[in-house]
Amino acid sequence: MVASPQHTTKQLSDLYAPRARDLAPPMYGAAQQGRAAPISLAFGLADPTLFPTQELAEVTAEVLAERPDTALNYGPTSPELYEQISERLQRQGIAATREQVLVSHGSGQLLGLLPEVLVSPGDTVIIEGPSFLGAVRRFEIAGAKIVTIPVDADGMDIDALEEKLAELARQRIRPKFIYTIPTFQNPTGTTMSLDRRRRLVALAATYGVLVVEDDAYSELAFDGSSVTTLASIDTEGWVVRVGTYSKILAPGVRLGWASGPSELIKRLAMVKVEGENGPFVTHVVSRFSADGRLDRHIAQLRERYRHKCQVMLAAIEREFPAEVQLYRPEGGFFLWCTLPQGVSAARLLDLSEERGVSFLTGSRCYCNGQGDDSIRLAFSYHSPEQIAEGIGVIGQAMRELW
Amino acid sequence: MVASPQHTTKQLSDLYAPRARDLAPPMYGAAQQGRAAPISLAFGLADPTLFPTQELAEVTAEVLAERPDTALNYGPTSPELYEQISERLQRQGIAATREQVLVSHGSGQLLGLLPEVLVSPGDTVIIEGPSFLGAVRRFEIAGAKIVTIPVDADGMDIDALEEKLAELARQRIRPKFIYTIPTFQNPTGTTMSLDRRRRLVALAATYGVLVVEDDAYSELAFDGSSVTTLASIDTEGWVVRVGTYSKILAPGVRLGWASGPSELIKRLAMVKVEGENGPFVTHVVSRFSADGRLDRHIAQLRERYRHKCQVMLAAIEREFPAEVQLYRPEGGFFLWCTLPQGVSAARLLDLSEERGVSFLTGSRCYCNGQGDDSIRLAFSYHSPEQIAEGIGVIGQAMRELW
Repeated sequence: MVASPQHTTKQLSDLYAPRARDLAPPMYGAAQQGRAAPISLAFGLADPTLFPTQELAEVTAEVLAERPDTALNYGPTSPELYEQISERLQRQGIAATREQVLVSHGSGQLLGLLPEVLVSPGDTVIIEGPSFLGAVRRFEIAGAKIVTIPVDADGMDIDALEEKLAELARQRIRPKFIYTIPTFQNPTGTTMSLDRRRRLVALAATYGVLVVEDDAYSELAFDGSSVTTLASIDTEGWVVRVGTYSKILAPGVRLGWASGPSELIKRLAMVKVEGENGPFVTHVVSRFSADGRLDRHIAQLRERYRHKCQVMLAAIEREFPAEVQLYRPEGGFFLWCTLPQGVSAARLLDLSEERGVSFLTGSRCYCNGQGDDSIRLAFSYHSPEQIAEGIGVIGQAMRELW
Repeated sequence: MVASPQHTTKQLSDLYAPRARDLAPPMYGAAQQGRAAPISLAFGLADPTLFPTQELAEVTAEVLAERPDTALNYGPTSPELYEQISERLQRQGIAATREQVLVSHGSGQLLGLLPEVLVSPGDTVIIEGPSFLGAVRRFEIAGAKIVTIPVDADGMDIDALEEKLAELARQRIRPKFIYTIPTFQNPTGTTMSLDRRRRLVALAATYGVLVVEDDAYSELAFDGSSVTTLASIDTEGWVVRVGTYSKILAPGVRLGWASGPSELIKRLAMVKVEGENGPFVTHVVSRFSADGRLDRHIAQLRERYRHKCQVMLAAIEREFPAEVQLYRPEGGFFLWCTLPQGVSAARLLDLSEERGVSFLTGSRCYCNGQGDDSIRLAFSYHSPEQIAEGIGVIGQAMRELW
């Protein structure tokens, strides 16, 4: 019936755009794999006993009963959610108008969209070492050359950053952005000092480099104190800040937001191909967040995560060799330990996993092969009893390997 | 403090990757704008009186009470939802394994991701005329050259398609894909005949061109009959099919899915930067869909939309000049009318909107300037009384312009 136009063999794969030929598999699912061990201290899962399930069910029923057309038809992201995010930002010293905020499918979506807007293959991106590799892999997928700046007890080493920026400038390389988690950093738990924050923002303006401030944890300061965000220091529009409901409410609702220069926010919205997040989930979360309910919930989370961190620290003091070095975090989900000389994190993980306990090896927080001398321990998910038990198992394994 | 490396003025906009410099604004929000008129027959909004709000509230409460960690922590899209989608596909004659399905943020996200995988600037994409421009604009944003094939009462004109494919082949142009809405087409409401479906799939295989079967409406056949999908005819892997919960449940949950060749599905997953859709909404929708509840709901929708379509057809017969030509749809949300000679859709809209009634001008369903002789009328959103009233207003305006 149909005449064949040419006698070549047509392949579906011929149709792919060049950029889609070599793609890496999606990152999602790592947290699921980490659940395999009976006690997993590997990933920053939220404590499921703290989810406000009853209240979420109630506000869902309210939203559906009172505003079915608004919540379930085609429509925008809840405008109330945008207002609430702006209010939270203002409390952190960031005056962001509606045009300076974008609600997203988790902060992970933004960390994937930022390189789409900013990175061409061969561009330079500066990260902290160690860092959150879930983000860094996305920069690498976009073709970024990664430059790593070390982290110490006061956060990113700004002297090293300044030197590196000067060196790159001499080579006429202008990095696209500096990716930092300045507050309760993932994985080290450290917080960047105020002096360093000021210097970082000044350097960004001087060199014309964007700062991506990934701030998932700052509302989880154990003592309830607030930190001075990079975005609040920035007066010239060189900081884009990424926030999330994952740590303060629930990862499963998949809601995050970016705030920053409106021109950049507009471009992020344009590469977000599905458009706005839409109504149902955003109305549920905004209803939950109203009337101070989210703030009361966060106060409970702080108390609970502070306690679990203390339990982990006490267990480490009891169970680990004194040679283990660590940062004492003031918030967040993670503890970072440097192992006694000669103990390999990879071997420690093998031995611990045989006994039902997992954690993240430090090498999974560097993209340069470093890190086998360190481990990341999440105190967020398990009960205090399980945390203590897990640390006991890891401590025992450590002594055997030492 | 910080030495300026060079005395040039640095701009944030210098940092954008070339592909991010010239971007079009997102399409989302059109449906909202169309609500401005008291009676809007412009957009395919769902009937809000049909949302199963009570049941959705109940299943949400169940999911949150029974599976809080699964529904609210980090985790994958509900595996039950994937199973249910596979079952629905099987009933439509499409045997799709887990690797051949991707759940997405509405079908709109897929229509944005497909050109990311397939289209480089200058590539050719074939569409129907008229078509759903919300999708076509995304192909244009990716740089596609659009070729339009006319639609008649039996769907896309396959003779015209065959001629065009042969002509393009002679020019050594291999189109990337053919975008079609074969069943209860948006905007015409027509359904492609089985013979044309077979010819279309055969042509796709012969010319090595992908077919994107956008199938939002096929489960809304007024008589409950099932149509033979293009995907079920395809035996060689040249059809990717896009489905959605927007028409059978609620647009506001933002859930759709693609099914097709696993290699293509894998690539779509890779350019979906946020990874999986995640747990909360997908568990709520899969719980709602279980135990035949979604099927019973769809049966109600069919009955209701059939009635509203009949009301609109009766009102048109009463109120419009007999010179108006239309297709009688057997499902879906839309009616397409060709206006009496000399009546401009744009002028008709102006006059109708002054009187509180809106619709979509035909030119908003073509990307080549055509269409001022036609209008699209949605019978999905308003009550039968409002539909009849709206048609009365448009009919009166039509007679005044004629």
